[in-house]
Amino acid sequence: MNKPVKQQQNQKQGKKPRTAITPTREEDFAEWYQQVVKATDMAETSPTRGCMIIKPYGWAIWEKCQEVFDKWLKDYGVQNASFPLLIPMSFFSREAEHVDGFAKECAVVTHHRLESDGKGGLQPAENAKLEEPYVVRPTSETIIGDAMSRWVQSYRDLPLQLNQWAQVMRWEMRTRLFLRTAEFFWHEGHNAFEDHEGADNDCRHVMGLYEKFFTEYLAFDGFVGVKTPEETFPGANKTYAFEAMMQDGKALQAATTHDLGTTFAKTFNITYQGRDEKEHLCHTTSWAFSTRTIGGLIMMHADDDGMIMPPRIAPQQIIILPVTKDDNAQAVEEFCEKIADDLKAKGFRVKLDNRDMRTPDKMWDAVKKGVPIRVEVGGREMEAGQLTYVRRDIGRDSKTTLKVDEFTNQAESILDDIHDTMLERTRKFRDDNTHDVANVADIEAFYKAGKIGFVRADVSILEDSALEKVMGEYALTARNMPNADNGEKVLIAKAY
Amino acid sequence: MNKPVKQQQNQKQGKKPRTAITPTREEDFAEWYQQVVKATDMAETSPTRGCMIIKPYGWAIWEKCQEVFDKWLKDYGVQNASFPLLIPMSFFSREAEHVDGFAKECAVVTHHRLESDGKGGLQPAENAKLEEPYVVRPTSETIIGDAMSRWVQSYRDLPLQLNQWAQVMRWEMRTRLFLRTAEFFWHEGHNAFEDHEGADNDCRHVMGLYEKFFTEYLAFDGFVGVKTPEETFPGANKTYAFEAMMQDGKALQAATTHDLGTTFAKTFNITYQGRDEKEHLCHTTSWAFSTRTIGGLIMMHADDDGMIMPPRIAPQQIIILPVTKDDNAQAVEEFCEKIADDLKAKGFRVKLDNRDMRTPDKMWDAVKKGVPIRVEVGGREMEAGQLTYVRRDIGRDSKTTLKVDEFTNQAESILDDIHDTMLERTRKFRDDNTHDVANVADIEAFYKAGKIGFVRADVSILEDSALEKVMGEYALTARNMPNADNGEKVLIAKAY
Repeated sequence: MNKPVKQQQNQKQGKKPRTAITPTREEDFAEWYQQVVKATDMAETSPTRGCMIIKPYGWAIWEKCQEVFDKWLKDYGVQNASFPLLIPMSFFSREAEHVDGFAKECAVVTHHRLESDGKGGLQPAENAKLEEPYVVRPTSETIIGDAMSRWVQSYRDLPLQLNQWAQVMRWEMRTRLFLRTAEFFWHEGHNAFEDHEGADNDCRHVMGLYEKFFTEYLAFDGFVGVKTPEETFPGANKTYAFEAMMQDGKALQAATTHDLGTTFAKTFNITYQGRDEKEHLCHTTSWAFSTRTIGGLIMMHADDDGMIMPPRIAPQQIIILPVTKDDNAQAVEEFCEKIADDLKAKGFRVKLDNRDMRTPDKMWDAVKKGVPIRVEVGGREMEAGQLTYVRRDIGRDSKTTLKVDEFTNQAESILDDIHDTMLERTRKFRDDNTHDVANVADIEAFYKAGKIGFVRADVSILEDSALEKVMGEYALTARNMPNADNGEKVLIAKAY
Repeated sequence: MNKPVKQQQNQKQGKKPRTAITPTREEDFAEWYQQVVKATDMAETSPTRGCMIIKPYGWAIWEKCQEVFDKWLKDYGVQNASFPLLIPMSFFSREAEHVDGFAKECAVVTHHRLESDGKGGLQPAENAKLEEPYVVRPTSETIIGDAMSRWVQSYRDLPLQLNQWAQVMRWEMRTRLFLRTAEFFWHEGHNAFEDHEGADNDCRHVMGLYEKFFTEYLAFDGFVGVKTPEETFPGANKTYAFEAMMQDGKALQAATTHDLGTTFAKTFNITYQGRDEKEHLCHTTSWAFSTRTIGGLIMMHADDDGMIMPPRIAPQQIIILPVTKDDNAQAVEEFCEKIADDLKAKGFRVKLDNRDMRTPDKMWDAVKKGVPIRVEVGGREMEAGQLTYVRRDIGRDSKTTLKVDEFTNQAESILDDIHDTMLERTRKFRDDNTHDVANVADIEAFYKAGKIGFVRADVSILEDSALEKVMGEYALTARNMPNADNGEKVLIAKAY
């Protein structure tokens, strides 16, 4: 794990480390995670069981993700649309594997009216019971498949590439903010092609976009690979997944693309008249990434002082703190405002923190929220036309004083360097904690010793009858079979 | 009503008019509306009762609305967030007026699991019945009010300005695409202020943004005014509304802002410690506009040949049709591609329609979809470095041939002129069809004669006991009391 800012400082001075987040990652990773979410003010639990409120600082990250990725999807030819939130229950009966897979734990709408319960409260009205219940969508293959069957007539209508940015709902029993909530947000792409080649190319292409987005914007890398049959999306022929490694060594599935073959085309009658004038089944795909990724961002990048926000999706890239005395407050604030305006004019996302609070409190707020660059300006800096900045990813060791112009000219390259450093860190962590193993005994020994990370084995290990017991004992799952190894290796890990 | 393109042409030639949409507005306005939605491919009904599928061409309009208006809200200081889709039923019991107003007809979630019904189908599982049902939000005053009570402590936390882009659900018995559907999309702003002045200023400011947005982007005007007490939002002190006039003379409420006073602050305990160190109730507001507005766009701008899309939110501003022969197809298409690329580089939303279809079919498709400028290029134009364009708002009479460079340089001003012409048309229609009346007898006479439009009377007419009967007979409602008249006048009309 990256050492937190304070720990680095204090260790130099031989003191016992103190951190902004309690407990630390080493003390209690799960509780540390919750405390980081709280300290960053990204989200909180709500009165609705299992559902979260995503607060402005958290939602801004998701908006930024949408902005970037949506453009890429449109450039690729995808069109956005909107399909109903509620799906008729009978649609789920039609694809048995699909409903067994995950559609059963869901929110079921059974009535369409409330009435007084005669005791000052309300109750669902008996005479407003629906003939057929509806399910709040856990995913939309069924209702979009039904629409595709109407929209696709001829090969000229293909490929049909659709996407929606929406929430879905899965009734989770144990929930954790961002990582596992009943309601979460995602984009879901649903596409129809003439043949297997079109569908498979689509799955690979979009997985490439995810990989590009995660590395270039979210500053993390992972493993791209094909899911084992047991872990394949219910109803799919093949699932490609991006598996990222959290700082506790567990895997987080950050995005998936599914080659659905003709499964949903058969169920929902998605056919087209081909160039040969005969009727054919479409090959369909679906793919998604979700607000779970924000949980992953935290578990990959944050340290014991709070979040470290990847610069390209950070809601605030630069925060400016005026450090004022009674006799120079106005002048320093105006000086800071000018710096902020100049940076904004250059396209940076800047916040001037002129709240009526103590400077150390503002400083720690910026640290906990993970703002990539913190600028401090006091009277002395102002008089010299200078500012002092600190990089969140490095901490006090990066403290630098520059002329204001020098800083505004260098800001982009500093942010780029922060991005590169963060990405490199996650890559190193991933590689340092991915261990090649030869057999099931090696796997058992690895996790028995309390080690963290992924183990990588030949795929033939999946056929070893001893594997299941060890996987069960250590709560392991096969994550994917990385492309880089032509599918001959399989990654096994604990997972979120 | 504006005469449709074909009608203008044919009348000149003395023929019986033929139109791209059947029936015409005069023949059957309601059915004409449905046929325009169908012809433009903006939306369709879904297997979910009362819910629509918004297709790519319709969703693109909503995305454009979001893009523009979201930026304005952020500039004003509003922060986006996301609150749960499902609201505990008991929250609605807490604000009696609110629940009586509209929260009873809603989708009620009562179970969290499906199980096999033993007959190949599914049913809600009895052992997964929720202790407290949830309601799919019909609006979010309650759940956001509850959050505000936690988030607001001191006057330093005010104003708190929140917004979410979301869908809401109200179980409508009679639905029409965009205008009245069970699920619809909107943005909902929820805000807390120290005092009445702050809340009222907010309501007026945001109503000003709506007015600006409708006139500057959607090319329509209406009447801004205060709702009568009967028409005020349930739980609000005061509602400001923007009422637009459709081509059949009916009103469509296009946006509202609500001064909620301390009603929700009392119910949800939204209090703050003031500058006087005493505890005070917040004054809250809420405001919204929704995808209903897209229905309004159609009913205000479309004609008997289909939609006329306001240029600034048109998904496609310019469509280019190559008119090819066997011997020049490739050259003409390349020439058109270059024009399209040049226009795209200048920031226009351009579509090159090179589908394998007959040119007249493409032409009529562009007319029905209401693309503001249609460009046609054949071999002769190509050889002369020219193109021919037609404005959708005027039709064939606007047919002009220009050098390609001249067109690309003028495109922006042509689009602006289309916008201005459309806006002026809706203003003229509104003014021509707003009639001042002196008493209830005048109102009765007006609607009895089958006239269309709004009537405007002194507000004192609301106290005339004869009014109610006439309003009931002609399905009239008081729309609002326009600000321009200092609230001394009231507008009465049929409404959507």
